Amino acid sequence: MGFWGLEVKPGKPQTHTTEEGRLYVTQATLGAGSSKEKSVLQCSIGAKNPIFLCSLLPNKTECCPLNLQFDDNDDEPVEFLVTGDRSIHLSGFLEPYELQDDDDED
Amino acid sequence: MGFWGLEVKPGKPQTHTTEEGRLYVTQATLGAGSSKEKSVLQCSIGAKNPIFLCSLLPNKTECCPLNLQFDDNDDEPVEFLVTGDRSIHLSGFLEPYELQDDDDED
Amino acid sequence: MGFWGLEVKPGKPQTHTTEEGRLYVTQATLGAGSSKEKSVLQCSIGAKNPIFLCSLLPNKTECCPLNLQFDDNDDEPVEFLVTGDRSIHLSGFLEPYELQDDDDED
Amino acid sequence: MGFWGLEVKPGKPQTHTTEEGRLYVTQATLGAGSSKEKSVLQCSIGAKNPIFLCSLLPNKTECCPLNLQFDDNDDEPVEFLVTGDRSIHLSGFLEPYELQDDDDED
Amino acid sequence: MGFWGLEVKPGKPQTHTTEEGRLYVTQATLGAGSSKEKSVLQCSIGAKNPIFLCSLLPNKTECCPLNLQFDDNDDEPVEFLVTGDRSIHLSGFLEPYELQDDDDED
Repeated sequence: MGFWGLEVKPGKPQTHTTEEGRLYVTQATLGAGSSKEKSVLQCSIGAKNPIFLCSLLPNKTECCPLNLQFDDNDDEPVEFLVTGDRSIHLSGFLEPYELQDDDDED
Repeated sequence: MGFWGLEVKPGKPQTHTTEEGRLYVTQATLGAGSSKEKSVLQCSIGAKNPIFLCSLLPNKTECCPLNLQFDDNDDEPVEFLVTGDRSIHLSGFLEPYELQDDDDED
Repeated sequence: MGFWGLEVKPGKPQTHTTEEGRLYVTQATLGAGSSKEKSVLQCSIGAKNPIFLCSLLPNKTECCPLNLQFDDNDDEPVEFLVTGDRSIHLSGFLEPYELQDDDDED
Repeated sequence: MGFWGLEVKPGKPQTHTTEEGRLYVTQATLGAGSSKEKSVLQCSIGAKNPIFLCSLLPNKTECCPLNLQFDDNDDEPVEFLVTGDRSIHLSGFLEPYELQDDDDED
Repeated sequence: MGFWGLEVKPGKPQTHTTEEGRLYVTQATLGAGSSKEKSVLQCSIGAKNPIFLCSLLPNKTECCPLNLQFDDNDDEPVEFLVTGDRSIHLSGFLEPYELQDDDDED
């Protein structure tokens, strides 16, 4: 259950693979900057249209809880993308697959 | 636990069947557009009156967490409907039924 | 895990019995209308004083997540009441007791 | 899983013992009144400094989700305290210890 | 499942070790003070760049839910840091490792 964090900068998509374990993304927070433009976090898998995951508004709503889970049942890597001027910090935790096995064996 | 996403456009109801697995809908985010009108997500099953699931306000509250679960114990398909000018993006994850069986057999 | 929804109208308390299964109430959303008055959802069980569960403000905060669980360990039926001019839509899911038994027998 | 609710009035600390079962506090909502002052919910255990649990702003943010759990592993009773002019209503659910035993025995 | 709370003051990083048990951090609330500056909670582990966990805005959004879990699978201690003028109070609960063992043995 290690802490997991990722800063996604505008226009620089970040790909996450789920090789290490199941990923729980539980929070999104607006990054540093002075722009008043909203930042939108999007997620796309494969060739499907991107889905908006959250929309953060400077000086109004700068963070929001999420509840997303990704693991190796996702056929393709997950790509996170931010539109707007400011980055979005994602946080959550990562559960290694071995740990799940240990639990099952108990 | 594959990522699941769906964009529901105003006036275009989307039907979701639960054949593939149990669906967890965990987030709603306002789609692109310049309208200041609020968008309301509704859900209806069969002939029952629709229930409002969330209400998103442009430039004020553009996303909100949800915690909805749908599976094959729902007798009829679930219909998502959006009123207002802008679409609502839903996200969450899908747990295949076979995986649940695997868990039970351990 | 069937979808569950209930519209509670102002001044018309709704009683919920937990005979069918364990109820998870996970979201409250302000109903239709033009009143700017806030709507407050209250819950009372038996002769105890009502407890405020959420307070929704038109054009500011029109929905909020909840995490309430009710089952047959509640001695008396649950009564939901709304004060204000606009109704509150509740949503969540219902877990039949038989399913819980099935899970236990696995 | 009985419903649990508690109104904490300003300046009147409420002590909760965990003898009956594990307590899940999942929501805080501002009580009735006309004051525009914010109300802050605090929690203290033993001689430690109080911790702020939430801060509710009249006509802006009148409710917020919580996720707190208390049980008999807490060495001392939990004291909830509200500062400000208006009370805060807490809600959640209580899981009796016997039920947990029943679950374990299945 | 003892209650856990920590006040993180601006410019005074707090290190948390996970020796006692698994820590669930579930809420952040702005501390006392009159500054209108926002306070940002950051988390860093080892030499990695800090990740923003939430951003609290005085008189607008003074608290927010979190869902973070830390345990002894984290290789290095967790450091919480606050930027801004006002402290941030964290709350949640701590699950001792022995309790997890007890559960497994049942």
